[in-house]
Amino acid sequence: MALIVQKFGGTSVANAERVFNVAQIITETYQAGNSVVAVVSAQGDTTDDLIEKANEINPAGSKREMDVLLSTGEQISMALVALAIQKLGFPVVSLTGPQAGMHTDNTYGNARISRIDTERIQAELGKGKIVIVAGFQGINRYDDITTLGRGGSDTTAVAFAAALNADLCQIYTDVDGIYTADPRIVKDAHKLDEISYDEMLELASLGAQVLHNRSVEMAKRYHVDLEVLSSFQKIKGTKVKEVVQVEKMLIRGVARDNDVARISIIGLPDQPGTAYHLFSLLAKAKINVDVILQSIGRDGTKDVSFTVGKGSLDEALSLLHEHLASIGGCCLTHDSDISKVSIVGAGMTTHAGVAATMFEALYEAGINIQMISTSEIKVSVLIAREDAERAVKVVHNAFHFGD
Amino acid sequence: MALIVQKFGGTSVANAERVFNVAQIITETYQAGNSVVAVVSAQGDTTDDLIEKANEINPAGSKREMDVLLSTGEQISMALVALAIQKLGFPVVSLTGPQAGMHTDNTYGNARISRIDTERIQAELGKGKIVIVAGFQGINRYDDITTLGRGGSDTTAVAFAAALNADLCQIYTDVDGIYTADPRIVKDAHKLDEISYDEMLELASLGAQVLHNRSVEMAKRYHVDLEVLSSFQKIKGTKVKEVVQVEKMLIRGVARDNDVARISIIGLPDQPGTAYHLFSLLAKAKINVDVILQSIGRDGTKDVSFTVGKGSLDEALSLLHEHLASIGGCCLTHDSDISKVSIVGAGMTTHAGVAATMFEALYEAGINIQMISTSEIKVSVLIAREDAERAVKVVHNAFHFGD
Repeated sequence: MALIVQKFGGTSVANAERVFNVAQIITETYQAGNSVVAVVSAQGDTTDDLIEKANEINPAGSKREMDVLLSTGEQISMALVALAIQKLGFPVVSLTGPQAGMHTDNTYGNARISRIDTERIQAELGKGKIVIVAGFQGINRYDDITTLGRGGSDTTAVAFAAALNADLCQIYTDVDGIYTADPRIVKDAHKLDEISYDEMLELASLGAQVLHNRSVEMAKRYHVDLEVLSSFQKIKGTKVKEVVQVEKMLIRGVARDNDVARISIIGLPDQPGTAYHLFSLLAKAKINVDVILQSIGRDGTKDVSFTVGKGSLDEALSLLHEHLASIGGCCLTHDSDISKVSIVGAGMTTHAGVAATMFEALYEAGINIQMISTSEIKVSVLIAREDAERAVKVVHNAFHFGD
Repeated sequence: MALIVQKFGGTSVANAERVFNVAQIITETYQAGNSVVAVVSAQGDTTDDLIEKANEINPAGSKREMDVLLSTGEQISMALVALAIQKLGFPVVSLTGPQAGMHTDNTYGNARISRIDTERIQAELGKGKIVIVAGFQGINRYDDITTLGRGGSDTTAVAFAAALNADLCQIYTDVDGIYTADPRIVKDAHKLDEISYDEMLELASLGAQVLHNRSVEMAKRYHVDLEVLSSFQKIKGTKVKEVVQVEKMLIRGVARDNDVARISIIGLPDQPGTAYHLFSLLAKAKINVDVILQSIGRDGTKDVSFTVGKGSLDEALSLLHEHLASIGGCCLTHDSDISKVSIVGAGMTTHAGVAATMFEALYEAGINIQMISTSEIKVSVLIAREDAERAVKVVHNAFHFGD
């Protein structure tokens, strides 16, 4: 008998029919002899509806009260899933984040998990019950409700899997696994049977958008075996684990990220401390910087280019304009009409020519590379937005994933 | 500086505009130098919407899960009211029933309050904050969410007023006070400045429908001064308290209740135990019986008539049909086309002729009385439904409330 944690996203519980579908998946797992803890998100648009209600009254209200409000979405879902499971005739209990022992820090709206008391869940499992837990929410040391921010429900599932020492954490979603490229762009993209945490981390942060990085990081740290699979189709998904079998493929997939904007600062003084001043300014404003490229100094000045999420572009620009004199730059340019295309694969460091194959494919397709960034398991290029889909196709093709 | 508990019902917080109206009332009370604890109900139709969602999935689900579901309604309200108060620029914190220390027994769906820990509320008041509390909900000793059933939010407000030793508990609703009769029926009905708990109890149970009996009972037991007033009009309401000033009026008001059905059992054996068998049968099925009338025995048999709520009529009849032989009755009759009209007033026991005045008024109007029931502070009659409005008018007139 295994202990399995399952997570169902908002689209998977969007209406009564889908709630029953989820109840079916959970009870089938239970009937197969497993203990089941299922983490659920808020139904479909519930969270957006609640935010709209709040904005109508006070768009600048405290995050504490927003968490009180938003946490009701998951509470509604968990009760409905429990009612469906009761209808199917199985013993079940639903628990809010606080009831389930999810303790967090005090960062309302984006809380970090501090510890998990599994006592209540263990007791309910011991009584043979299926346990439904509200994702995304916890309680802080003031006994106040907190929410975990983006990717919170995935993270909730992985955290409970870790705390309960579960045998598997299944993330049910609206896609059926992790693909070598976005199947909507690349027709012969194929689903991976398995992928390592590190590869998944690179893919997720590069825009694959299936699993939130935070949940994968936690899975890696606590050695939680993940499986990403579809709640709508009964087929095998993709396993995410520590070590994956060595395949002939050097790279695991091709990802594209459109949420990226480039900023360049021209004519910075070529002296120590310049980069420090620039990036600490952005860090203080909590603006995340991704790819950084610095030109070699010439004539006593250098240029620095970097990328930020498109949502941070305006703030970053106004901040930099304000401090341009003190940083010492001459002028600012920016471009939000770009994409980042990346290849990811743990095999690539030990195999020469991976980056070269990618660049060659882009060259033959006449796609200009604006910036390049590499890590041990990925190569990313920044290119014009209009070239992005084509780039994913030719790069995917160059690595013969289809073979 | 006084401590005031305020309660706002579902219609008072039904939309953003009304939420601001409530925020205005609360902050004006706060600005006048008072500490304020405000108890809120779920917005307008939220509770009905949630019940519909649940019924679509499982109309026979556990009450525990229904409580998990329904308690979200008040949680949404309390956050929205808090956000509105923040918008007005005042310090505020919202608390769920469990956070506010509302402990109950384990009767999901209809829980009784067991104790209230005021520590958290006191601490927040001590920081100068306005405290918004979710009505209708609590926590049991299993750390599970419970709801208090009908009249739960009124009861929540009174319970916190008692526990906090508040100076006043204001129940804001969509009427502006307690009237000597339903103003929609009797044009010259007038609003009472004050009324005693006992009188209010009789009026409430007789269909006045402004305050739930349970909350009035609790107010009486803990000597909580109540005020019923409108959240839409800024005028004085009606105070409900222990002792009210003696007025010339002998009776406090005329009430009508249409939610009543009569059942008669004919030909019961005239021997000890008959009433016991009959009514314990109904009690076991949790059917509440109101007025009971037993004929004087004749020919070794007697007839018993009693009233139940209309919602219990079918169940009561099928139960009685099933056991008619063992109870020893001959036959059953029933009538759901009746109303109960009552006069209430603490003065009536010491003043002869109150009941006679009522009966005379009905006689002159040609209204037939089917059953009569009296207590120390009320006289009720059962009459045909079609006569009810007219009866309220002529009785109200007979007591010269308008003078």
